[in-house]
Amino acid sequence: MFYLIGLGLFDEKDITLRGLETVKKCQRIYLEAYTSILLVQKEKLEELYGKEVILADREMVESSSDEILKDADNCDVAMLVVGDPMGATTHADLVIRARELKIPVRMIHNASIMNAIGACGLQLYKFGQTVSLVFFENNYRPQSFYDHIKENVSLGLHTLVLLDIKVKEQSWENLARGRKVYEPPRYMSASLAAQQMLEVEEDRQENICTPDSLCVAVGRMGSDDQVIFAGTLQELAEHDIGPPLHSVVLVGRDVHDLELEFLRAYAVNLENFDRVAKTYLEK
Amino acid sequence: MFYLIGLGLFDEKDITLRGLETVKKCQRIYLEAYTSILLVQKEKLEELYGKEVILADREMVESSSDEILKDADNCDVAMLVVGDPMGATTHADLVIRARELKIPVRMIHNASIMNAIGACGLQLYKFGQTVSLVFFENNYRPQSFYDHIKENVSLGLHTLVLLDIKVKEQSWENLARGRKVYEPPRYMSASLAAQQMLEVEEDRQENICTPDSLCVAVGRMGSDDQVIFAGTLQELAEHDIGPPLHSVVLVGRDVHDLELEFLRAYAVNLENFDRVAKTYLEK
Repeated sequence: MFYLIGLGLFDEKDITLRGLETVKKCQRIYLEAYTSILLVQKEKLEELYGKEVILADREMVESSSDEILKDADNCDVAMLVVGDPMGATTHADLVIRARELKIPVRMIHNASIMNAIGACGLQLYKFGQTVSLVFFENNYRPQSFYDHIKENVSLGLHTLVLLDIKVKEQSWENLARGRKVYEPPRYMSASLAAQQMLEVEEDRQENICTPDSLCVAVGRMGSDDQVIFAGTLQELAEHDIGPPLHSVVLVGRDVHDLELEFLRAYAVNLENFDRVAKTYLEK
Repeated sequence: MFYLIGLGLFDEKDITLRGLETVKKCQRIYLEAYTSILLVQKEKLEELYGKEVILADREMVESSSDEILKDADNCDVAMLVVGDPMGATTHADLVIRARELKIPVRMIHNASIMNAIGACGLQLYKFGQTVSLVFFENNYRPQSFYDHIKENVSLGLHTLVLLDIKVKEQSWENLARGRKVYEPPRYMSASLAAQQMLEVEEDRQENICTPDSLCVAVGRMGSDDQVIFAGTLQELAEHDIGPPLHSVVLVGRDVHDLELEFLRAYAVNLENFDRVAKTYLEK
């Protein structure tokens, strides 16, 4: 059997009892290393499981799937994934490959940012499509996220904005010389995300993510030092919510007063929050 | 401290290690009984925790919040919730009340249908707003869900349709006579959901959820006998996916071929699935 097991949001204690029980009976255990590097230490997992854990980077998951799935028709193999297993297309590919090899697959679910974001008090059913924001580079400043947010905004819905993570990046020089030397990982901050959103708004001027738009930012969701920020995009652009990972929500116009009341406890500037929140309720 | 702890999708083994550790140190433990009745048995939880678990129905959570929160500034109290704690507005109310009483609150997240639905292979970021479908009664056949689905359809997005649960219902007669006698719980089947969607389509004729619309149904998500169905709404209307709980997804027009390939393994009628899937890719 091939198991895809969600590790949840934060550390080794976020696995479920079912997940832990399953890991313990597996002959091989892989840890998807794309986002996990930051969050859980391989050594801590190994200590908890009493087993060796093999780090699998994106390259390995994408190009060596047969190695990962090897013998999984006769023994138990687990792939551990931060959050929930089906958060990334990569794992859908693995499942399809396993099926081709006639290997049975089972998923063990866990919390991910896609549902835990409800912790900020915004109702999950009122979120539209999720958008991703990449690091802007000199000549690479894609605006497609803006169009998707615009679709949500037109329906009054909230938008979860997932922020870029750069792991195993190579500098142009190292890439050109074929040197497998990697840059340190980079995680987009909520504040940079707000700046990029405001930059595109300034270019497009369609009143989608303005300096006065209400937003929420969550840092280190599910951890002991989780932080929730509520305020305007302008405030967020100037505010540091600490170490990664961060996520951002743009609040939709159809927000209820109960949602705003919940958010208010996280307002970075109460007076400004109340001023702006009022304009949302007066619509 | 007041803890809101997600129990995950299925049974007592879906709690996280962090959740279990926390429950074990709590002085009082409540179990939100609205959806959980079906899924986890109180006795099994008590056995696992080595502690008494108090059943809290919706009425109690909504009207006796101060009793639940009593002394939580001096001791540890847990409210266990099937899925993730912030799936229902009720718990937002509890958090706000706790804040008023100056009681610190912590959430321990878990999987819920809102993220685990990714198991069917449809990409989570391409889901629009979530809609709920209630049991149609003789004169009560609300169509508002259709308008929300229509908004998602117009953007090519998938729609998660949550199905009605009736717990602690009273018959008109018992209600009129003030007798606290309750009807057995009712859970809407995916098949009934499809029938209701088709009924409204027939009335509205806006080409939103037609007999040939692709959909997915999941039964008993996360359990050992989880079932995933893929096919048309007409097929689903005539198909029984077994015991509750069920959820339905209406597939959006922007579906990728990888998503369809993943779904194909669950097709109830391959030939028909391929015929209809082709029309989605030809758009």
